[in-house]
Amino acid sequence: MPRLVMKFGGTSVANLDRIRRVAKRVGVEVAKGYDVIVVVSAMSGKTNELVGWVGETGAFYDAREYDAVVSSGENVTAGLLALTLQENGIDARSWQGWQVPVQTNSSHSSARIAAIPSDNLDAKFAGGMRVAVVAGFQGISPEGRITTLGRGGSDTTAVAFAAAFDAERCDIYTDVDGVYTTDPRITSKARKLDRIAFEEMLELASLGAKVLQTRSVELAMRYKVKLRVLSSFEEMSDDAGTLVCDEEDIMESNVVAGVAFSRDEAKMTLVSVADRPGVSAAIFGPLAEAGVNVDMIVQNIAEDGRTDMTFSLPVDQVARAEKAVRDAMARAEINFHDLIADEGVSKVSVVGIGMRSHAGVAARMFKALSAEGINIKVITTSEIKISVLIDRKYMELAVQALHDAFELEKV
Amino acid sequence: MPRLVMKFGGTSVANLDRIRRVAKRVGVEVAKGYDVIVVVSAMSGKTNELVGWVGETGAFYDAREYDAVVSSGENVTAGLLALTLQENGIDARSWQGWQVPVQTNSSHSSARIAAIPSDNLDAKFAGGMRVAVVAGFQGISPEGRITTLGRGGSDTTAVAFAAAFDAERCDIYTDVDGVYTTDPRITSKARKLDRIAFEEMLELASLGAKVLQTRSVELAMRYKVKLRVLSSFEEMSDDAGTLVCDEEDIMESNVVAGVAFSRDEAKMTLVSVADRPGVSAAIFGPLAEAGVNVDMIVQNIAEDGRTDMTFSLPVDQVARAEKAVRDAMARAEINFHDLIADEGVSKVSVVGIGMRSHAGVAARMFKALSAEGINIKVITTSEIKISVLIDRKYMELAVQALHDAFELEKV
Repeated sequence: MPRLVMKFGGTSVANLDRIRRVAKRVGVEVAKGYDVIVVVSAMSGKTNELVGWVGETGAFYDAREYDAVVSSGENVTAGLLALTLQENGIDARSWQGWQVPVQTNSSHSSARIAAIPSDNLDAKFAGGMRVAVVAGFQGISPEGRITTLGRGGSDTTAVAFAAAFDAERCDIYTDVDGVYTTDPRITSKARKLDRIAFEEMLELASLGAKVLQTRSVELAMRYKVKLRVLSSFEEMSDDAGTLVCDEEDIMESNVVAGVAFSRDEAKMTLVSVADRPGVSAAIFGPLAEAGVNVDMIVQNIAEDGRTDMTFSLPVDQVARAEKAVRDAMARAEINFHDLIADEGVSKVSVVGIGMRSHAGVAARMFKALSAEGINIKVITTSEIKISVLIDRKYMELAVQALHDAFELEKV
Repeated sequence: MPRLVMKFGGTSVANLDRIRRVAKRVGVEVAKGYDVIVVVSAMSGKTNELVGWVGETGAFYDAREYDAVVSSGENVTAGLLALTLQENGIDARSWQGWQVPVQTNSSHSSARIAAIPSDNLDAKFAGGMRVAVVAGFQGISPEGRITTLGRGGSDTTAVAFAAAFDAERCDIYTDVDGVYTTDPRITSKARKLDRIAFEEMLELASLGAKVLQTRSVELAMRYKVKLRVLSSFEEMSDDAGTLVCDEEDIMESNVVAGVAFSRDEAKMTLVSVADRPGVSAAIFGPLAEAGVNVDMIVQNIAEDGRTDMTFSLPVDQVARAEKAVRDAMARAEINFHDLIADEGVSKVSVVGIGMRSHAGVAARMFKALSAEGINIKVITTSEIKISVLIDRKYMELAVQALHDAFELEKV
């Protein structure tokens, strides 16, 4: 029988009423003839409660024990959903990570899936099981300890099962009904996309459109798993949500698929620093060690052997970054004129695989911003993305202007 | 190194503060040189929450899924205690039932432990682990599914580990500081026993002294595991609590170790029933099938081929028992005169292995009750116990009178 993977997040299984609604949705797919693998998260709030308790035991805890504690929330949901499906007359059972087994490496709390042998589930499907309810987010290490995949790891679990069991599709049920051209709270012209390419989704995910975990999109892209994002709170239909797929499966791409943004950014500039080999490493090595998530990096043209180095980072990491940079410069005896932080910037990006074949996207973007009087502070580009840093007060205006400029209301 | 098993119930691990207190107690034993196996219950209230959710899924649920859900509470406590011990500098790790493994049969929700192979823990102890924190109440079936041992099963887990790992002693930490000659709420003369024989503890446990689960005492008796019951809320000392042990380890036993009681009993009498072979089976078979816990059974001497059959049962099962008996009599076409229920009785018992070698215990008991004007309705005896049914209003008086008559304030 064809197979389908369905994944439900914490808000979709927050209580027994919602679990019953999930069971009904699963039942519809079973009735269509699918053997279904359902991947579930913990009931919303439960994982935070467990994480809180672990934090109470001490600041530096054993990640193996963290995993053993925190994985228990998913086990509860898996059992409850299996029971509810059985109550509806469907042959279902729960599977914890070690029972499948979901084999991972030993990087506790951020483990990577190594393999999912299909024998155990295959045998049960052959014996009449119609639904395997799998506890998401967890696996088992080579040492037989419980591992977790890190926050949001249930999306990754779902995609990995879809790949391992050659599922027709992996449906990610969440609390939004799909991927939008931009956040509808910023402009009412935002439109839901029917399809989006993996590469675009990856850029959007890492830019702050928190619909899918980045790792799960990467995995889906590598194994060509068709991912669908849809709401567990709306009526079911075959064309609901947004399909994340290979670009070949998209008939005609827009030049730009969407406008993403990240509000609380900061910009730091190291003014007039000696421009010699090793200076970048001397700056960004210590920043990485201090846990600063440096995003955009721009180096101005050097003059007289000196240069300005500018980078962006989340605004709440400025203090940490400042200390790391000053310490590093002192240690490496690198002389510089000043270190300036601008904590009032936002990042706005346009993303689209169509850019590859269309010239002039950057020009169109800059023109639209300029028409609104918005000054661009930093620019970076990739093959399918152009990002700019601007004053935070203009963020909404910039998103609206770009949405209009690329006619995204027409998609 | 010598080994010790310590078991902590739900109230002892109800929150992080209490878990820290437990860790301190465990640390004291580690400092003495013990390798320790700690068996933990779920934080109090957690198991009830999980059981409630399972109940919400439907009335007739798959016990395998029930076990998968309900066992998760112990896993959380085990991880949190291991983390807290590590924080105190002790080499500790958590073990879930399937990791040890605790091998059970497939009777889900009331599984029996078949074996606990010691290889895994032994290897870790040899490698420097000082404390294994084991999730109580759970195991793994031959099919690889999670099982639970039934309510209170963590006591049984603890005793089974003590037997499998040849522990010097199994300390059961609970919210009372030991086993008493009777309930101190009934008489202030009640005394804590320093030692009690397994057989006596078994009778007391089944008679309503809810300190230890009966199964765990049976298991301890079979494998000669020294059990100690003590409070997790009092100061530690080497002679705290009550030691439950082999009768040979008790220098001189009192004739009577304690007075037990069960308040809410009922008595039913089937008056003038045909006394022919098979009539007992015709009555008590259907009662068992109806889930009635028949306790004492007395059959009066037959006259003219007819007899009176009296039995006791919990008072809240009277309606069910009445229906079962009437249906059974009709089905088997057994004629009887009347079925009388007395819902106002209590059971009072004296228990002691000394009875075996002392004549006159029954006479002394009956005399003490008679001196208070208490009428005895039913009597049953075993080798180390004498039980009587009396009017409920005399229960406290009877317990006090018997406590005095056997001089239990002097133990």
